[in-house]
Amino acid sequence: MSNRFRFLGGQRGVWRVTGMTAVSGAGLDPVAAVDVVNNASPDVPDGTSWVLQGFTSNIRYATTTELRTLQAIQQPPGRPDSTRAALIPLKKTSQWWDLPQDARRRIFEETSHHTEIGLRYLPPIARRLHHCRDLGEPFDFVTWFECAPEYSAAFDDLLAKLRATEEWSFIEREVDIRLERAHG
Amino acid sequence: MSNRFRFLGGQRGVWRVTGMTAVSGAGLDPVAAVDVVNNASPDVPDGTSWVLQGFTSNIRYATTTELRTLQAIQQPPGRPDSTRAALIPLKKTSQWWDLPQDARRRIFEETSHHTEIGLRYLPPIARRLHHCRDLGEPFDFVTWFECAPEYSAAFDDLLAKLRATEEWSFIEREVDIRLERAHG
Repeated sequence: MSNRFRFLGGQRGVWRVTGMTAVSGAGLDPVAAVDVVNNASPDVPDGTSWVLQGFTSNIRYATTTELRTLQAIQQPPGRPDSTRAALIPLKKTSQWWDLPQDARRRIFEETSHHTEIGLRYLPPIARRLHHCRDLGEPFDFVTWFECAPEYSAAFDDLLAKLRATEEWSFIEREVDIRLERAHG
Repeated sequence: MSNRFRFLGGQRGVWRVTGMTAVSGAGLDPVAAVDVVNNASPDVPDGTSWVLQGFTSNIRYATTTELRTLQAIQQPPGRPDSTRAALIPLKKTSQWWDLPQDARRRIFEETSHHTEIGLRYLPPIARRLHHCRDLGEPFDFVTWFECAPEYSAAFDDLLAKLRATEEWSFIEREVDIRLERAHG
């Protein structure tokens, strides 16, 4: 499996768009569907409005204890009953990226409790983080979440908690795209 | 300026190769010269034997104090009297990349003193780090160093100190390429 994932927004795709919200900064053109492709091919099907892409990578903030806990309970995307998804591209401010590692860690976890909050919603909510700032993309991250329909409210609750943190004061662009697919 | 740099090894180039050593793992094909190009273009001149590429990125380990000290004294590559250079691509083991952030930080600085050792040789030795593991390249980093001829021995001393650290036990491939150019 390549570490590169692309998200193609267009008229057709496995995931039907049920909602798109520009949470901060500029939105993305409305599309009817999204396809997730595990490669870095430059080929784009006709009718594609936009392409987001990023790579999975090593852990950037989690400590030994946090990583062990995460790895013990997190589930990968792709479970058959995960028919709801969210695609949330994010861009942080240049001020964030200029911070030293210890200052970013402090905000990420000691004040914002990013991992701790996320852990409360595992394993029902599966998550995959894609980095793209280093590729010169318009966003810094593309985040992908999946869950069964009965956990949609819990997912909204998770997002509300994260958006209220100090870390989120460094988010200058965020688009929230909700998706549904047939039971797989 | 793009964050993407390419290093073209071939028969012609600004930097004349004075030595190539496979320090760990497989070496690279011998070349006569290297050119450094600040873009991600797929175009490669005839006679190019190999291309290394990577991106500059945010700081991954330095703390507030370390970063402040670094920024106060480090010099960028490109000084006219910097006519000696070293191009050293490195690959770390998968064991390294699977470590949580705090464990990597501990090895990088608390036991190996990577930043502390480097600081002793600033400002004479200029340095730029390029990341490439996330691009699926054969190396994880391409490191580039420049100095005036009178600091070549100090540079060898710096490298010897780093290669003796615990961090270097996680290096599985390293090629050391030395270069010279006419005074600019």
